[in-house]
Amino acid sequence: MLNQKSDLPPPELSRKSRRKGRMARIAVHAGSGRGNMPQALRRIPAYALLDEESLTALEEQADWILSRIGVEFRGDDTALALFREAGATVQGARVRFDPGHVRALCATAPATYRLHGRDPARSVMLGGDHVVLMPGYGSPFVTDLDRGRRYASLEDFRNFVKLTYLSPWLNHSGGTVCEPLELPVNLRHLDMVYAHLRYSTQPFMGSVTAPERARDSLDMARIVFGGFMDSHAVIQANINVNSPLVYDGTMSGALRAYAAAGQSVAISPAIFGGAMGPVSQPAVIAQTLAEGMVGIALTQLVRPGCPVVLGSFHSTMNLKSGALTFGSPEANLSTMALSQLGRRLGVPVRSGGGQITAANAADGQAMQESSTAMLSAILSGANQIWHAAGWLEGGLTMGYEKFVMDLDHCGMVLRLIEGLVVDDESLAREAYLECGPGENFLSARHTLRHFEQANYISALPEAGPYETWLEQGSRTAEQRANARWKAMLAAYEAPAIDPGVDEALRDFIDRKKASTPERWHE
Amino acid sequence: MLNQKSDLPPPELSRKSRRKGRMARIAVHAGSGRGNMPQALRRIPAYALLDEESLTALEEQADWILSRIGVEFRGDDTALALFREAGATVQGARVRFDPGHVRALCATAPATYRLHGRDPARSVMLGGDHVVLMPGYGSPFVTDLDRGRRYASLEDFRNFVKLTYLSPWLNHSGGTVCEPLELPVNLRHLDMVYAHLRYSTQPFMGSVTAPERARDSLDMARIVFGGFMDSHAVIQANINVNSPLVYDGTMSGALRAYAAAGQSVAISPAIFGGAMGPVSQPAVIAQTLAEGMVGIALTQLVRPGCPVVLGSFHSTMNLKSGALTFGSPEANLSTMALSQLGRRLGVPVRSGGGQITAANAADGQAMQESSTAMLSAILSGANQIWHAAGWLEGGLTMGYEKFVMDLDHCGMVLRLIEGLVVDDESLAREAYLECGPGENFLSARHTLRHFEQANYISALPEAGPYETWLEQGSRTAEQRANARWKAMLAAYEAPAIDPGVDEALRDFIDRKKASTPERWHE
Repeated sequence: MLNQKSDLPPPELSRKSRRKGRMARIAVHAGSGRGNMPQALRRIPAYALLDEESLTALEEQADWILSRIGVEFRGDDTALALFREAGATVQGARVRFDPGHVRALCATAPATYRLHGRDPARSVMLGGDHVVLMPGYGSPFVTDLDRGRRYASLEDFRNFVKLTYLSPWLNHSGGTVCEPLELPVNLRHLDMVYAHLRYSTQPFMGSVTAPERARDSLDMARIVFGGFMDSHAVIQANINVNSPLVYDGTMSGALRAYAAAGQSVAISPAIFGGAMGPVSQPAVIAQTLAEGMVGIALTQLVRPGCPVVLGSFHSTMNLKSGALTFGSPEANLSTMALSQLGRRLGVPVRSGGGQITAANAADGQAMQESSTAMLSAILSGANQIWHAAGWLEGGLTMGYEKFVMDLDHCGMVLRLIEGLVVDDESLAREAYLECGPGENFLSARHTLRHFEQANYISALPEAGPYETWLEQGSRTAEQRANARWKAMLAAYEAPAIDPGVDEALRDFIDRKKASTPERWHE
Repeated sequence: MLNQKSDLPPPELSRKSRRKGRMARIAVHAGSGRGNMPQALRRIPAYALLDEESLTALEEQADWILSRIGVEFRGDDTALALFREAGATVQGARVRFDPGHVRALCATAPATYRLHGRDPARSVMLGGDHVVLMPGYGSPFVTDLDRGRRYASLEDFRNFVKLTYLSPWLNHSGGTVCEPLELPVNLRHLDMVYAHLRYSTQPFMGSVTAPERARDSLDMARIVFGGFMDSHAVIQANINVNSPLVYDGTMSGALRAYAAAGQSVAISPAIFGGAMGPVSQPAVIAQTLAEGMVGIALTQLVRPGCPVVLGSFHSTMNLKSGALTFGSPEANLSTMALSQLGRRLGVPVRSGGGQITAANAADGQAMQESSTAMLSAILSGANQIWHAAGWLEGGLTMGYEKFVMDLDHCGMVLRLIEGLVVDDESLAREAYLECGPGENFLSARHTLRHFEQANYISALPEAGPYETWLEQGSRTAEQRANARWKAMLAAYEAPAIDPGVDEALRDFIDRKKASTPERWHE
């Protein structure tokens, strides 16, 4: 039930294209990194919010949307032709599907697959009970307590790649972790992709904002991974739907480019209820499923077996003030429901957002919204949780202090999903035979044997007792987090890379920059 | 499965003692209050962390503790006699039970029951899918941004009773919401109980710190509720276990006093793993169950059918620094497990703690620990969640700003447990027929019909967009919360009370104070 396809062996792309000895090449490029950190596996049950009747009603609603209303693919005749050929009804840009048709087209998508990092030890599994956390995505601003809020730069981008690489809890380098705004809009993807490949060895996301940028990202990945990527996913694309029910040609073009290359395609409807869809969450959930399934169907028409992720992102509105809200109870319910629906579809699920918030600083509001959104996502069984660290201001800003505070909570939720092992050792009968009623267990043999590993230990400085805290300036958690990211960056060492590969990447970038007129606006 | 006894009609104490026309008398004393706020009902499934095998192993461990190690009742020969008479093995203060015996003794405890408020509209159900939230308990300090941290006073106590009464989300007035330290230790319970009865109409907790204080609390309740309380629960007692595995005579005496009066008895083991029990959570969970069941068994020996609550409170330790941690993943797992075990025992469950934190201020750490502990408790299906608002510093301090920030999150989790109603109206097909692909739903008829009620709306001021927020002084959520509790207190109006009842309460207090020498230390 948990994963309808989990009995199958992990299909690393289609079986036809599998090759032997694939690890040999990748190993050459593997950096030394910080060693092999095992990816998290959820060992506790996924929370099942909705019953069968509600789930079926939502799936029927998605089918109704796709058959009665349809989805528009604007400016992409290739996509329209593929859908027409598959039996859909195409009128202008509008595509409609008989009930059940889109779901059937999704059937070739793998339930689980490996997304490879430059270091094989950093590769991750997507789907099933596997959990992948990655940093925030897309912020034009960054902030820290020393320099304040400012436009993001390439230096900030590199910093967040490094901080992510250094974290024991994030196992995906992300994509546009922040926008390096000092670089031309049509060339900055080159430096972003290079930063992921050079300063990290984890899986990452390529550019999708124009067809040639998607191709550049794939070409750069090929310099590192070579023919290995013909049959293995080594790069991921985030395809945003123009909700409601529209794919623009840029996004569907990028989708087709990554799908043709057999790379991981995450379809991300982002629906703000009341704006890009109805104001009620069940409608938003079904619309997300409809929009997501159509994108997945297109990947499978381009390349059957293409690895995908069903994404979702929900914001709600304070319908009194009109302000967007994040981590709201309504959005968290939608996150929970979509994890269930994604499992039933049999594909990996990206949660509606990890540690997201509308707050401008890493204050109480920020951490309350962030941590409840994260806990909802991870308990629901989401496989890939985006925006797990750094997000502020509804995504406008990546915060350095917020990043390390979020990291700490990532560690906690990963501890949570390990669950409890109830066995003779954890039940500790010997401790009761040693320490009777009224006695202290601090020096019990069982305590001494386990105290170092028993509880999650935060990497952030503690507040300490009130008096100490007061003497030290009553520093908030945000203030106490300030030193942490600096210490992490100071300890960073770039992973090794084959000098020839590095040179080839730099040559590629130099040639592109030399041959392409700079553009500063899309 | 969810509630083994839920098919039975709610047993309001034992059936023999039920009376007709009981609401007549209570209605006389009912204050006008702010109207009938419906109690929350969890409409989403309780999260089932553990499987049958683990649950059985934990129950067997509790039985092993009770049979092999036993529990001590120190200084309470009456309790020892009751247990001996029931067939337990008593040696000195130590009581041991055959496996299954204690659970069998608990069988007469009701699975659900009503805890009555002075205003019948404020009465609550305990058990089943009902949820009761109450404020923090026991803090010697209070803090707010204007006056800073200080010893708690009776004024603070009254303020928190009033704030609780005014909140739409808390439906229990609590007990020692903070300690009025300017009053003599042996008399302050009189003013506390009076504050609950006079400034609120919600259910509340009486004193347990000495047998005569328990009797005073019951006597004062009788002035308000009269003979109604012979057969209905109108007051609750918090019985702390001296973990590991000890009940001191004061607590077991108070337990017997409340149980003899047929009032609600909450048994609260508070186990800090590694100190009052082994360092591993499964051991802590089983020990909590063992300690809790023994207390419940004693209530049933005193008065079969006595309404109870299985409580728990877990703190973990940062085993590097020795500091206590709250809202940790390990403690949250224990909260989840104990909700399951309590349902299997067939009694209402008090969660391990609502919005608890070790932080000294309502900063990011405070709200992250608090909100994840709360979400864990409420998803696990806990029936009564203590410390749902105000807690700071591991319970040393009640914070005014923290209180209203926590209230806001209480509203959110209560929205969350309403779940999603998937029906024609929420699926909003008409909205899609009105607004097609690419169109905005803001002015759709469906949106206009629902926008006011669609999403939870916070009562706290929003941060606003960054520029506005910066202009207004970059105020943290804690700073923005400062005005809220003052506005609430300013709007407070005391509920009506029968003048004769009020006079009788005051007379009782005056006589007690006049006849009792003051004591300043226990």
